[in-house]
Amino acid sequence: MAIVYGGDYNPEQWPRETWAEDMRLMREAGVNRVSVGIFSWAKLEPEEGRYDFGWFDEVMDLLAANGVEACLATPTASPPPWFAATYPEAVMVDAGGRQLTHGSRQGFDPSSDVYLAKALNITEQIARRYAEHPALALWHVHNEYGCHNARSHTKAAAAKFRVWLRDRYGDLDGLNAAWGTAFWSQSYSAWDQVQAPLPTPTIPNPGQVLDWKRFSSWQLKQNYLAEAAVIGKYSDKPMTTNFMTGSHPDIDLWEFSDVVDVVATDHYLVGEDPHVNLGFAADYARSLGAGRPWILMEHSTSAVNWQGRNRAKAPREMIRNSFQHFARGADAIMYFQWRASRQGAEKWHSGMVPHAGTDSKIWREVCELGARLKELAEVEGSRVHADTAILWDFPNRWAQEHEARPTTDLEAQAVFDEYYAALWRAGITADVAEPEGDLSGYRLVVVPAVYLLSRKGAANLRQFVHGGGTVLVTPYSGVADETDTVYLGGYPGAIRDVLGVRTEEFHPLLDDTVALASGGTGRIWSEAAESTGAEVRDTYVLPSTAARTGADAPAGTATPAWLVNRFGEGTAHYLTTFPDDATLDRIVAAAAEDAGVAPAAEAPVGVEVVRRAHEDGRSWLFCINHTGADAKVKTADAVVDVPAGEVVVHREH
Amino acid sequence: MAIVYGGDYNPEQWPRETWAEDMRLMREAGVNRVSVGIFSWAKLEPEEGRYDFGWFDEVMDLLAANGVEACLATPTASPPPWFAATYPEAVMVDAGGRQLTHGSRQGFDPSSDVYLAKALNITEQIARRYAEHPALALWHVHNEYGCHNARSHTKAAAAKFRVWLRDRYGDLDGLNAAWGTAFWSQSYSAWDQVQAPLPTPTIPNPGQVLDWKRFSSWQLKQNYLAEAAVIGKYSDKPMTTNFMTGSHPDIDLWEFSDVVDVVATDHYLVGEDPHVNLGFAADYARSLGAGRPWILMEHSTSAVNWQGRNRAKAPREMIRNSFQHFARGADAIMYFQWRASRQGAEKWHSGMVPHAGTDSKIWREVCELGARLKELAEVEGSRVHADTAILWDFPNRWAQEHEARPTTDLEAQAVFDEYYAALWRAGITADVAEPEGDLSGYRLVVVPAVYLLSRKGAANLRQFVHGGGTVLVTPYSGVADETDTVYLGGYPGAIRDVLGVRTEEFHPLLDDTVALASGGTGRIWSEAAESTGAEVRDTYVLPSTAARTGADAPAGTATPAWLVNRFGEGTAHYLTTFPDDATLDRIVAAAAEDAGVAPAAEAPVGVEVVRRAHEDGRSWLFCINHTGADAKVKTADAVVDVPAGEVVVHREH
Amino acid sequence: MAIVYGGDYNPEQWPRETWAEDMRLMREAGVNRVSVGIFSWAKLEPEEGRYDFGWFDEVMDLLAANGVEACLATPTASPPPWFAATYPEAVMVDAGGRQLTHGSRQGFDPSSDVYLAKALNITEQIARRYAEHPALALWHVHNEYGCHNARSHTKAAAAKFRVWLRDRYGDLDGLNAAWGTAFWSQSYSAWDQVQAPLPTPTIPNPGQVLDWKRFSSWQLKQNYLAEAAVIGKYSDKPMTTNFMTGSHPDIDLWEFSDVVDVVATDHYLVGEDPHVNLGFAADYARSLGAGRPWILMEHSTSAVNWQGRNRAKAPREMIRNSFQHFARGADAIMYFQWRASRQGAEKWHSGMVPHAGTDSKIWREVCELGARLKELAEVEGSRVHADTAILWDFPNRWAQEHEARPTTDLEAQAVFDEYYAALWRAGITADVAEPEGDLSGYRLVVVPAVYLLSRKGAANLRQFVHGGGTVLVTPYSGVADETDTVYLGGYPGAIRDVLGVRTEEFHPLLDDTVALASGGTGRIWSEAAESTGAEVRDTYVLPSTAARTGADAPAGTATPAWLVNRFGEGTAHYLTTFPDDATLDRIVAAAAEDAGVAPAAEAPVGVEVVRRAHEDGRSWLFCINHTGADAKVKTADAVVDVPAGEVVVHREH
Repeated sequence: MAIVYGGDYNPEQWPRETWAEDMRLMREAGVNRVSVGIFSWAKLEPEEGRYDFGWFDEVMDLLAANGVEACLATPTASPPPWFAATYPEAVMVDAGGRQLTHGSRQGFDPSSDVYLAKALNITEQIARRYAEHPALALWHVHNEYGCHNARSHTKAAAAKFRVWLRDRYGDLDGLNAAWGTAFWSQSYSAWDQVQAPLPTPTIPNPGQVLDWKRFSSWQLKQNYLAEAAVIGKYSDKPMTTNFMTGSHPDIDLWEFSDVVDVVATDHYLVGEDPHVNLGFAADYARSLGAGRPWILMEHSTSAVNWQGRNRAKAPREMIRNSFQHFARGADAIMYFQWRASRQGAEKWHSGMVPHAGTDSKIWREVCELGARLKELAEVEGSRVHADTAILWDFPNRWAQEHEARPTTDLEAQAVFDEYYAALWRAGITADVAEPEGDLSGYRLVVVPAVYLLSRKGAANLRQFVHGGGTVLVTPYSGVADETDTVYLGGYPGAIRDVLGVRTEEFHPLLDDTVALASGGTGRIWSEAAESTGAEVRDTYVLPSTAARTGADAPAGTATPAWLVNRFGEGTAHYLTTFPDDATLDRIVAAAAEDAGVAPAAEAPVGVEVVRRAHEDGRSWLFCINHTGADAKVKTADAVVDVPAGEVVVHREH
Repeated sequence: MAIVYGGDYNPEQWPRETWAEDMRLMREAGVNRVSVGIFSWAKLEPEEGRYDFGWFDEVMDLLAANGVEACLATPTASPPPWFAATYPEAVMVDAGGRQLTHGSRQGFDPSSDVYLAKALNITEQIARRYAEHPALALWHVHNEYGCHNARSHTKAAAAKFRVWLRDRYGDLDGLNAAWGTAFWSQSYSAWDQVQAPLPTPTIPNPGQVLDWKRFSSWQLKQNYLAEAAVIGKYSDKPMTTNFMTGSHPDIDLWEFSDVVDVVATDHYLVGEDPHVNLGFAADYARSLGAGRPWILMEHSTSAVNWQGRNRAKAPREMIRNSFQHFARGADAIMYFQWRASRQGAEKWHSGMVPHAGTDSKIWREVCELGARLKELAEVEGSRVHADTAILWDFPNRWAQEHEARPTTDLEAQAVFDEYYAALWRAGITADVAEPEGDLSGYRLVVVPAVYLLSRKGAANLRQFVHGGGTVLVTPYSGVADETDTVYLGGYPGAIRDVLGVRTEEFHPLLDDTVALASGGTGRIWSEAAESTGAEVRDTYVLPSTAARTGADAPAGTATPAWLVNRFGEGTAHYLTTFPDDATLDRIVAAAAEDAGVAPAAEAPVGVEVVRRAHEDGRSWLFCINHTGADAKVKTADAVVDVPAGEVVVHREH
Repeated sequence: MAIVYGGDYNPEQWPRETWAEDMRLMREAGVNRVSVGIFSWAKLEPEEGRYDFGWFDEVMDLLAANGVEACLATPTASPPPWFAATYPEAVMVDAGGRQLTHGSRQGFDPSSDVYLAKALNITEQIARRYAEHPALALWHVHNEYGCHNARSHTKAAAAKFRVWLRDRYGDLDGLNAAWGTAFWSQSYSAWDQVQAPLPTPTIPNPGQVLDWKRFSSWQLKQNYLAEAAVIGKYSDKPMTTNFMTGSHPDIDLWEFSDVVDVVATDHYLVGEDPHVNLGFAADYARSLGAGRPWILMEHSTSAVNWQGRNRAKAPREMIRNSFQHFARGADAIMYFQWRASRQGAEKWHSGMVPHAGTDSKIWREVCELGARLKELAEVEGSRVHADTAILWDFPNRWAQEHEARPTTDLEAQAVFDEYYAALWRAGITADVAEPEGDLSGYRLVVVPAVYLLSRKGAANLRQFVHGGGTVLVTPYSGVADETDTVYLGGYPGAIRDVLGVRTEEFHPLLDDTVALASGGTGRIWSEAAESTGAEVRDTYVLPSTAARTGADAPAGTATPAWLVNRFGEGTAHYLTTFPDDATLDRIVAAAAEDAGVAPAAEAPVGVEVVRRAHEDGRSWLFCINHTGADAKVKTADAVVDVPAGEVVVHREH
């Protein structure tokens, strides 16, 4: 029983004399597991079919000898130079139709047969050689699937896309119906007319693009399954791959997560957003595993290298970040990477051992954190319970990326973040859920711009509310079905009855805002909504041409802003615009009250409190003080003092 | 005698059971004509050479049976998937050299011989089949020529470009002289060295680019003529194609409009500009037909789908918009499209029957408008008279798109719009005219940044002023000739004598403005102008380095801002900067007074008044109140009450 | 003994009758040298292998007859259309992998063998024909090497890149070590795997990109050497090429300048920056020639055509500009071009004879300047002495262009300009120096973001300070070695000892700034620095998360902002942020005082004063008044009156 602690270990970047020091320092920091081999293909197979495993044997043996477990990677995310030199057409083609080249990483087309053959071959070499190695604890299949090459527009991919479409639709009639090809004379009469999306004179077919995204996501999962099958021939150790739950929405993780033995994710702090994206990424990783503990496979001790402005973490910030993940269900806290590189594309990415060496804030915090995790070993395996869920769906997100929509100001991710942030401010721990998933365990479900809502998802939501649940629904939800076909008769067609509302037209705002009768402000969006039964709690005046021209123009119509509908045993809140934060906080509080959900404890704003509990009743309250003032967190039976900037893990029972 | 009313009808997007409802609703709305077949190629010829006309026969018969005329399209603007699959190189190549693909619309190269052959074949199939159909009223050749593929940089296009150039210049000496190839060592010594413009290391040859634009525009007209010739073998019904007079300045409509039997245009409201672009598009459509009534072939009932923010129309706004076109000479008011699509690239484009169905503001306004147009049938055929013209010229616009110019802040379209807007605010109805066109009917001609002014155009303007006309000329007019060769000796070389001015140098402004002596502000531009006889009505101080560095620097020189010159019997106003709106309004008023032009009636700002009159003297005053206050429009012998937001058509005589 | 005066002369753009007028006007203006033939290839060799030299003979004879020297160009910078038509693959490929085409200039790949063969052939034709011509004074080899095609990503270039790399590194082990290919599995196992950088899925290898820039720069120099060798077979006249010292940092001029007989440069005023870039370009041209007088081969009489907003020069500004160059060591003042073109890509570029003709401000100033230069002939050959240097290094600049760095807000050029501007405001004349160059003649050396500092460069700086020099060092200096490998142990690793400082981490700022204890403001950058011996003169509080989130967050740490260290006999100033101008002026003054450097004379801000002196003691003080007020410049023994906007050259001894 232990919390796993460590990071990516890339000894091939350093002289052998450093390796011994690495072992000593890992022990000093309390590191008990490292990921190895992720970028080692070129060193393990320097020429096609010629192998050099000696150095890697040495690394594995060193780890075993020092009591550090290996999370052993297949190195297939970064083929060596010989790969692109021999098979240039097996590198990806971008959305603009450009054949990309070697010189970076992920230089391959996921649909390439020759890539797959080479990847499975090196996978087999490694699986066979190390299956029984004493250091081996976990297989790290590939690395960050699709981080840069999620969608590769090659001819090979187009061929597989056609097969995938045939499976999905049976025949061309099905395809033509789903894609609405009757518009703009796009009806297909033979399968080989269907291509990967590539630049076109104007707006592409939304159905084609949506399915292309579905296929591309599916393809990556197939590659995982193929490698896993090879490994499984030699080893029964668990396997996973590191998702990127807080970013890279190109892969449908609801589909992919089914096949990993344990969910793992990577998270990197967004400089300007220290909390929301982190919390989402962690909650989402937990939710992908149905609440089971998960692995934080990578995060950073301080700055990263790929943001425009790569801010370093302030003192104690790393400790707080790591505990945020731990609190939200991570049983493994790992970093990219052990030693900050001196060269290469990521030399400005921090590591556990920074450029400055061990006489450094980073190293001291790394050691402190290692010690604290050791003390908290008992937390391992405990769970986080949430009675609130916020919906996240990939096809919905993808459909909204299409250029021709009511307004490009409405971005699915931004809406999600806005509502997640409101929950965070309210101290409400939330799961992330699928629209079609099991919602029976929740009291409150937030529906943030779930534009594309399948018939099944709509029925699921309807049943949830009817049975007593509370929903909080934003504009542009429930508008189109799974083929991106608009529900007719008034928006939001899929759930008009649930919401007690009917909207004739969307009125996206230009540069203006609308004034809420309650005193707040609505941004981005307005709509010509009418209550068909819901209580109207707030209104605004629908903008006329006036607001646009500055001229004195005909007055607009008063329109509901916030509607609350009783539906069956439950309650539905619907907003017709995007309110300012203060107004949103008020609405979230009202919905939470309707649902009977509350924070884990009473704490000042900026003090994050999350509970982990074992089934046997033992529980801990993770109190993370992001503020500069000492704080008190009040639980049912205690007051926990949390100093400014610090983390206190309070054992409750 | 009737005003045509209807829209694009795409029944192939809907199940057959909807068609009967369509007929019923068309009758309810007063629809008397629809455009059909525009995007039907894939359904009519699902595989190359295999045809399916049965369903379309049914549609045509339904229309005839219900008294709805067909504006029958050749479907050649959107080839089916088999076209690109079979002839991938016949799809367009963009300006960056990328071969585009199928998946959108207009997926063809206008210069492609194989495209033309396929287009003429389907045209012939349709012309032969429906020439005598009772529903047929008008041929709708192609659709929005060049909306996305006006310039296709294929090898096929380059070959035709060379033929066109040979026709234009006779020999390479002529070409070299016109393009100024002596600069940068670009002299051509053989025809096959001449290519379509494609990416180059730095600034391209302006002559090559300008002629490429001329050629590309010409090519589209040839395609029209080719289709028209095929149709003409079978039918003597009138033919047209829908221009886009308010946008897409890639096609020289002065040249193209000669060959259509009636001018038709499409117009879509720009969200942020509810009046100027609409008015221009309408006036221009009328002017292309020498004042004859024209067809508004497409506009929208509410939002479109392709702007960043697609704002919906406020209540009554659609009615006002449609009347704006009607007032400015349209005898047909049609929409894209009859029924808003549920799928595809334009599902967020409004229709006459919206997603919400007939219980909707849109449908009610559609029906109301249909009824009102019926009442106004007598207006059909009446004309709009304007004694003001504003110049618009395509080569001028194209030449100014070249990257290497005095300042990229000066944009030809923006200047045009600024001056058109000033006329609109002044209530002055204007025609749009060619610099080389007949100006004899006008009293006032506005010359907005007509940089490229041919010798013939300059002579035309000179004659107009000399004979008593008034011109209002902006900076950067009359500077270069038809080959984009600068007139020497001082700017604006083509019309220095007319303006009584000589400018040594242009001084584009950086981020600063100039203060007019009269109290206003000059933007974007200043120049070292001297009067050679003109009266100086306003001045500013030419910026020295001072204004740029913030340092105390040598004082600049006082320079004329507004000069007024008597030339022959006429008057020329010349501005050397771009004044603020209030100043411009003052200048326009002065020029209008000089010219003796006045609005159609006295009306408050924001109330648009345009007169249509029959030759027999019957006339109507269209009064469109864009404001939120009831207004009074005073004519010579009446006061017309126009309620806020409403349209009143006042019968004068 | 004379100051050279003239410009590019392109008579092929004008009819023969103009040529006689040109000669007359050149005499009137005092022109004594022109550059000819730069863009004449297409006229001299209109078809491959067919020559037409008759017209050019005439031009050369005319010049000789009129006492105007010829700076005779090889026309190889702009191949004729036949070149690209015959050898399309010999045109450059851009960084995106696009094959560019003819239609502009520099339409060739510098690594192309066929290009080189054609270029050397026309060079030989010209050299043989005109080697003994009486007009010939100087060879103008090519034109603005690499202005647009410095880096051409062709296969031909890749092949030469591999040869260059083999020379540099000996074997692949050396290459792999230098490029850090152990990261991301990029180890090369065969030479033919190495390619030119082309688009990759994500961040490219920094070592590859850096060496590609080194190679590309080297390639251009080889092309110069090849042409020079051909010319040298026929002529012993001096040779040069026109650098662009103020822009186009793609060519390592420290390397290139060794092979020209005299340094020549082109400079074009940046509209928004009338002084800094000009001064830098001039100082740099002088420094490239180790202080020897140099040729201003091109500048402009007024506006250029390629900036977004091409502002014209105010009256007298051209005179001041030309004198700025003259003051800083130019012995030749030349323009692009003699006569402003009427056509082509640069028709909006001003000339000595403007579009307006000779009745113009420009022409009058051209004549005035010619006369004044004649009077100052004695200045020819005199030198400018500077005891301050500011470092400029190409690999440093190139390395910082890599996308993955601490912050993209820190731009090497902007930092350089900021510090050069501070020196300019302080009236301190500075040389531009190489980090590895001889610094022994200086008292003060400014080190502006010299991130990449070789071991040799670091030793050079260390020796300079140790021996008594003063350095002023900005953040992000001395961080990585010549292979872009980070120095470990704390930043700035190469010169920690010199500065008495150790920084653990860089903390780039987001949108915020830091408040200096002294009252000023720090921008862009902060860092966790500690003094290891230096005196701390100013501090700020290192931002915590607080500043980023707006929330009340843990207080940051106080950190040194300005540290001053005694090292050996010298002094090192180090800044850890980028201060506002006023603070920077204070720091520069302190460093100057430490170093004992002072301006050439006492003058108000905005009055530029530079001294030129002969070895025999004769000296002149160039006083250039950029302000609108008359000024007094006080020297050791005189007071010089300098009227507003004027230039006074004061003979001192």
